[in-house]
This record gives sequence, structure tokens and C-alpha cells, in this order.
Amino acid sequence: MKNQLKLGFVGLGIMGAPMAGHLVKAGHEVFVYTRSKLAPEIAQSTAVQCASATEVAQKADIIFVMVPDTPDVERVLFDANGIALGLSKGKVVVDMSSISPIATKEFAKKINTLGCDYLDAPVSGGEVGAKNATLSIMVGGDEKVFDRVKPVLDLMGKNINLVGANGDGQTAKVANQIIVALNIEAVAEALLFASKAGADPAKVRQALMGGFAGSKILEVHGERMVKRTFDPGFRIELHQKDLNLALNSARALGISLPNTGMAQELFNSCAAHGGRAWDHSAMVRALELMANFEIGQKA
Amino acid sequence: MKNQLKLGFVGLGIMGAPMAGHLVKAGHEVFVYTRSKLAPEIAQSTAVQCASATEVAQKADIIFVMVPDTPDVERVLFDANGIALGLSKGKVVVDMSSISPIATKEFAKKINTLGCDYLDAPVSGGEVGAKNATLSIMVGGDEKVFDRVKPVLDLMGKNINLVGANGDGQTAKVANQIIVALNIEAVAEALLFASKAGADPAKVRQALMGGFAGSKILEVHGERMVKRTFDPGFRIELHQKDLNLALNSARALGISLPNTGMAQELFNSCAAHGGRAWDHSAMVRALELMANFEIGQKA
Repeated sequence: MKNQLKLGFVGLGIMGAPMAGHLVKAGHEVFVYTRSKLAPEIAQSTAVQCASATEVAQKADIIFVMVPDTPDVERVLFDANGIALGLSKGKVVVDMSSISPIATKEFAKKINTLGCDYLDAPVSGGEVGAKNATLSIMVGGDEKVFDRVKPVLDLMGKNINLVGANGDGQTAKVANQIIVALNIEAVAEALLFASKAGADPAKVRQALMGGFAGSKILEVHGERMVKRTFDPGFRIELHQKDLNLALNSARALGISLPNTGMAQELFNSCAAHGGRAWDHSAMVRALELMANFEIGQKA
Repeated sequence: MKNQLKLGFVGLGIMGAPMAGHLVKAGHEVFVYTRSKLAPEIAQSTAVQCASATEVAQKADIIFVMVPDTPDVERVLFDANGIALGLSKGKVVVDMSSISPIATKEFAKKINTLGCDYLDAPVSGGEVGAKNATLSIMVGGDEKVFDRVKPVLDLMGKNINLVGANGDGQTAKVANQIIVALNIEAVAEALLFASKAGADPAKVRQALMGGFAGSKILEVHGERMVKRTFDPGFRIELHQKDLNLALNSARALGISLPNTGMAQELFNSCAAHGGRAWDHSAMVRALELMANFEIGQKA
């Protein structure tokens, strides 16, 4: 096969398994390692199962990482049996997890000292995006490295942007999650207000769509609030993790994010009512609890 | 002239003057009253200047009102020399001011007892929209009355929606202003975070545009924050008035709007720094002051 690459994939969870699957299907030689049981789509494929992340790094030239959080990436990279121990000069590590931009800059420097390149390439688009290879990918790193890896990223996503240097991909992802949470909160306050004032929230949403209040969130999540369909979608507990990252990073950077703080508290209130697995549009429920009134109820 | 109507217009300020001008240009017989000096475009037109709002209501069949705030509408409608005193059965009052939805329902009832109809029809789109007849108009009232007045509204706006009964037009406008303020705040937090974390805020904004963080505000106001162009646009003091309406109405309705409250405090902080006439996208400056850091500054 022309241009067959030796690719590694560490972390084959809900996101990682379908993403690695696309690399296998494209005909590349794929070396994998995951702590959990292998998904059938990978186990029954030509992917080569390795005994450790170190072994993946020894056998592959570009190694992708997709694990839950900052400490997981640190472990997978630098622990005994980690990726760093298997690297040799000229290889590339691509972290597609959503983690701290600040820690990412340190990880990248450490990998660079081994003569290897690093990209942070967090994604948005969730499980559906991973399965359909329609993820948005926000990349931080050198342009030459980006150009080298881009054809492989194209197998997993659609809207792929080099945002800047290492860490900037993660920064863009955090910024994305801040806006998504706060636009959900905005639509929730507006539709709750409209409904309690006696208007039809569906008609208000419709009247607002084409103007300055228009957003992807008013379109998609606003409809979920009106129709009371709170199956995920994107789970509240995942957005809590992302806002935690935003708020911790903001504190470390010395800036104040007051409405992100409030949005996190509203998610926390949802969680307190059993809503960790509700779709994030259900943030409106926390405001409804505060108001003792639900959208659609008789005012 | 075919279908020439007898129209009234009370309140010929920055918004009202160009709006009334469109009615005159369309060939209707327009009776006007305003407290301030007549704009040249009206003074030099065929519009008939009346001595009071009462006289406007006596001579016109459909009377439009465009004044700043709830007490102004109340005065223009119900004071001595007010519109109510000049009305006779079958006439219509159309209030295009942005005022309290709760007070609006009372005003409508009082006008109805005189055998007349009432529409609340607040607009969005500002001075530019008024001049170019491209205003969005959110209407509350009976469908038959809406159908009767719609051809005249078409002379002033483009995106014209009947949202529901009296008050619902004002409710939609408040909901609109809540979302616009909170989406500005969201973009401000995200871009400030990105910039302080060392990323290029322009590139982050670009990377986020097509995804779930996408909004009209990220597009228009996000660019103003990055380019530091804070000439209005829409003045902070006007948005303060709108959020005051939202927060007072929310309190009266018994619901809690935590992020709207915070957005108002940030506008207040801008005003404290001389920013009452800045564009509302300059809300980001209040966050920048809190962070002792400006977007675009070296992190």
C-alpha cells in the first residue's frame, strides 16, 4: 500500500476506539494499547495489540493519545511503561485528549528534549463525531509537524485548525467549552424568563433565531429545553470536567471568569439532583429549580 | 393614492424619526407629535405636526409610539394630552418602544376598554436598522390586528414575527437582550482566557466559528474585542436599561437570572470607567480590569 504509516494509539475508550478504527480502515499499520478491554471493532481488526504504551512508541512513528484527563496523559506519557521510554528521534506524539493547556506546554517540552515532536489536538463533536469522522480538531504545535500529521487527522475529523504553538490547541478547546456552557446558560435564562412571563418559549426562540441572539446553541440546545429532551448529547459530568479545567487554569493564569463559575455551580446543582448523565442543555433545570417553575408550565 | 392610511407617530427621536419617515415616503397621511425639536427629514416632509399626542390620536387610525422607557409610554398614553384621550372605537395603538412586558399587559387592557386595539411591537437592529428599514420586530397582540398593521410594519422592518398575545412581543425583546448580553459575556471570558494563556485570540475565534460555540456575537462582537473597536454599535447605557428591565421583571415574576445580574454588574463597571457610550462589546473591558490584563497584550 502506498503511504502506509506506522501509527500508534493509546487509549481506546468511547472516543479512542472509533478514532483508531478509522486509521486501521485507511490501511495504516496501527499499534494499540489500552487499559480497558479492547472494543470488538479493534480486537477483530488488523490493529496490533501491544503490552504497554512503551511498546506502542517503539513500533509506531506517530503516536496518538486519547485518555480522559491531565493526570492520565501525564501517566501515559511519562510513567514506567509510558510512551516517553519507547520514543526515538523524529517521532511525533499527538495528544487528542482535552486537558490543561498549562500542563500541555510542559509535556511538549519534555517530549521535545527526546528529539521528538508534540502536537496537542483536542477535539469537539463527541461520540457521534468520533464515529462519523466529523470531529472538529484544534491543534497546537509547529506548522511542519502539523503538515506531517494532517493527512492522518483528516481520517478522524473535518474542521481541523492549527491555532498556534503547543498548548494553544488545548486553550482553544477550553475557550470553546466556556462559550458553549455560557451560551446554554444564556438561552436557559431567556427561555425561562419568556415562559414565566406567559409567552410561548418555542415562538420566542423562533423569533430570536435570525437576529443578534442567534447561535448554534439557541438552535440545538434551545430546542431541547423547549421539547424537554435531555438525553445526551454531551453529558453534564463531562462539561463539569471541562469547566473545572477552565476555572483551575484561569486561577493559575490570574484571571476571573465569573459566569463560567456560575455555570459550573448550576451543573453542580443538576448533579445534586441526579443529573450527571443528563445532556448539558439540562443546565436549565438548575435555574428552574431556583425559580420553582419549569419551561412550558402554566405561568 | 390607493390604500392611503391615516397614521400617527408619537416620539421622533433617533429611532422614531427615520421610522416615521418611511411611513411618509410610502405616501401615507402621517400625523406626528414629539417633545423634542422635529428632525429635518420630518419637518421638511408632508407629515402633519400636531400640538399633542391627543390630537395625533384624534386624527390618525393607527398610532405608533416610540419613546425611551416604561414611564414614558405610560405618560404618552394616559396623561392629560395623552393618546387615550383622543382615541375613538376601532383605532389601534402600536407601541414600538422597548418596555416592561408586565406594564404592557396593563396598558393594553386599558386601551381595549376604550374599544381600541393594542400591539406591543418592540424592535431590534438599532439606528442603522431604523434608517434602512431592516428592523426585527417582535409583536404581541391579536392576529387580526397584527394582519391589519403588518403592511405598515413592513415599511419599517424585515424580520417581523407575531410572538403571542399582548406583552409577548416585549417579553421576546427582553429575552433577546438577555441572550445578546450573555453571549457577549461568554465570548469575552473565552477570548480573555485564550489571550492570557498565550494563544492568538483572533485564531481561536476563527477556529471556534463553525462549531457549537458559533454565534452571531462571536462573529460580530468577538471581532470588535480582538480589533479593539468599541465605537457603537449599541451603547452600553442602552443595554443597561434593557437588563434593568430584565432583572426588575424577573424579580416581579419570581425567577432568578444569575448571569444576567453579573452582566449588568460588568456594564456598571464599564460605566464607572467612563464607558456609558462604548459599544456593548466593550463589556470585555470590565473583565480585563478584573484580570489586570487586556486581550492582545503580551501574556
